[in-house]
Amino acid sequence: MNAGKSTNLLQVAHNYERDGHRVVLAKPSTDTKGDDMIVSRIGASRRVDVLVSPLDNMRERVLALGGIGLIACTLVDEAQFLTREQVEQLRMLVDEDRIPVMAYGLRTDFQKRGFPGSIALFELADTLEEIRTVCRCMHKATFNARLVNGEMVFEGDQVAMDGDNEVTYVPLCGPCYQQEQDKVGK
Amino acid sequence: MNAGKSTNLLQVAHNYERDGHRVVLAKPSTDTKGDDMIVSRIGASRRVDVLVSPLDNMRERVLALGGIGLIACTLVDEAQFLTREQVEQLRMLVDEDRIPVMAYGLRTDFQKRGFPGSIALFELADTLEEIRTVCRCMHKATFNARLVNGEMVFEGDQVAMDGDNEVTYVPLCGPCYQQEQDKVGK
Amino acid sequence: MNAGKSTNLLQVAHNYERDGHRVVLAKPSTDTKGDDMIVSRIGASRRVDVLVSPLDNMRERVLALGGIGLIACTLVDEAQFLTREQVEQLRMLVDEDRIPVMAYGLRTDFQKRGFPGSIALFELADTLEEIRTVCRCMHKATFNARLVNGEMVFEGDQVAMDGDNEVTYVPLCGPCYQQEQDKVGK
Amino acid sequence: MNAGKSTNLLQVAHNYERDGHRVVLAKPSTDTKGDDMIVSRIGASRRVDVLVSPLDNMRERVLALGGIGLIACTLVDEAQFLTREQVEQLRMLVDEDRIPVMAYGLRTDFQKRGFPGSIALFELADTLEEIRTVCRCMHKATFNARLVNGEMVFEGDQVAMDGDNEVTYVPLCGPCYQQEQDKVGK
Repeated sequence: MNAGKSTNLLQVAHNYERDGHRVVLAKPSTDTKGDDMIVSRIGASRRVDVLVSPLDNMRERVLALGGIGLIACTLVDEAQFLTREQVEQLRMLVDEDRIPVMAYGLRTDFQKRGFPGSIALFELADTLEEIRTVCRCMHKATFNARLVNGEMVFEGDQVAMDGDNEVTYVPLCGPCYQQEQDKVGK
Repeated sequence: MNAGKSTNLLQVAHNYERDGHRVVLAKPSTDTKGDDMIVSRIGASRRVDVLVSPLDNMRERVLALGGIGLIACTLVDEAQFLTREQVEQLRMLVDEDRIPVMAYGLRTDFQKRGFPGSIALFELADTLEEIRTVCRCMHKATFNARLVNGEMVFEGDQVAMDGDNEVTYVPLCGPCYQQEQDKVGK
Repeated sequence: MNAGKSTNLLQVAHNYERDGHRVVLAKPSTDTKGDDMIVSRIGASRRVDVLVSPLDNMRERVLALGGIGLIACTLVDEAQFLTREQVEQLRMLVDEDRIPVMAYGLRTDFQKRGFPGSIALFELADTLEEIRTVCRCMHKATFNARLVNGEMVFEGDQVAMDGDNEVTYVPLCGPCYQQEQDKVGK
Repeated sequence: MNAGKSTNLLQVAHNYERDGHRVVLAKPSTDTKGDDMIVSRIGASRRVDVLVSPLDNMRERVLALGGIGLIACTLVDEAQFLTREQVEQLRMLVDEDRIPVMAYGLRTDFQKRGFPGSIALFELADTLEEIRTVCRCMHKATFNARLVNGEMVFEGDQVAMDGDNEVTYVPLCGPCYQQEQDKVGK
């Protein structure tokens, strides 16, 4: 959604590390083509400590890096791509290992449907917090519309894999999304 | 969860009506045995204006009571029992008819799984706000455990229909829920 | 502001007591004519445990009722009338005695100026949370306008003591407050 | 407090500008030695559009840059150094000129006292939102302690002007601040 999730994550990492506390940065490899960087739109970027594939056990991957008492916080980017099992493993990190977890991700896809990781976080997280951004009309944006080669589309896979076309997203409020959807007669 | 959802709803209704604005109170009939009251634990209660069955169109039911410009706000209790279609209809009330909607409900069931209505609200609502309550250990409660005749259970239907047994719920934090689940070896 | 502060306080008390935890309800006696009830607009009400005068030590008054380990939470109504010293004493209850405190009060008076207790809470509280209500125009209300015998006034004492006149308050948003103030040419 | 205020401000500016909307960045010149940059700890930085001295009229300074319909949002850094008059002028930008304002600043100084600009924002802002950071003990930090040449001090001017000494600040939670204050016997 380009609202500042990665910026926020990098700032939280900085806040912990400023006092000498250690954080673990993680990210699912799925659909990000194995890219292991967390990149903020305002210029900062940083390599993750853990790149997780869908079958990886998040808890084990994190604890392998230091364990209880050594890790102050686990920060996860692109958390919408986590599996339910991985979110349950993060919950265990909190409940059993007492390591706080902050996971950043999109709420819904371009068709207003939750991602598996987002729904699992909705079900299992202690606190839900929104990072807001504005719609083109200046109201708060709630949804993400997909553009393929600059055209708004309302059908397709949840994750666009279409290598030949340029796929981008634009944040929209409810009424603006509806207006665009009405235009294409769907 | 007994955290104060109905209390909050009744207070919001009062806030609107104090200035002469009209609100519509709605509630799904499902699993509430057709009971048409909204009851706060601290003593207040009130009859709903619309009792909706699963096939009802929420938007039509609300607009039948007055329409745009006449209704200041729609307030929905037990919103976890709404269908996805009904939440989409509420979204239309907001986007097309410009009538604000506030829907109150549980996030998850006793097995930490979202209700259909809650997941739809997670996907479609502009803002998510939490009404908090405390666990027995005094930390913030995140989950609801089910008691059947006073015993904590971790299996069963999402909505308990078991007429012969007394089914109650207790709010627990993550670690306390885990501790109870470990006790029953599951 | 009539937004639901007392309703919320009574619900939180209920949430604690439901599990057998003990809460202390307190209220400044100042400007409330010694009335020792907490009254919700939606019907519930309850007697306070501690009615504090401006020179009372809040910490001592609370600890006299049970002390550490026995009191789960202290709830304060009309907290805008506390003194800075009393808010510091509440802070000590949290930091030294580890008893959580939730204080409910108005942010500002009818001239958009903070009350002593509100400013002290702004300075010393761990968390600030807003209980919202609507303006007559349906936007979020930010300010309180004073009506004396039904007429909006913009001058006078912070606390109206005027026994012969009927003083009431109405929540307004920024533009509506400004509009009213422009009318009286001030 | 080094919690990420400037990072957040720069991200919000980016969110608006991404869609071609224009923002105005402002900052009081007081006590910042006329430095006209907004600098994020995670690497981004940017020059302000308006550097305001204490007698400047904030509303006029902003409107001089474009006026209603041209400016999407005004973003203010180090807002604790604004005067009450300037916060009132920002309020007029919102109420009269319908230009949203987001002001970022510290809540309190190292002695737990509000800055003039912070108290004015507490009194006049529509919404208060907290940017959190962690204490050395990993709990949420509420206060800022001052270090002069590495030593914690609890007396001095609200704004340290002491050119020969190194003045820094460290975020602390309530109990940790109290513990440090007890050490110096005050």
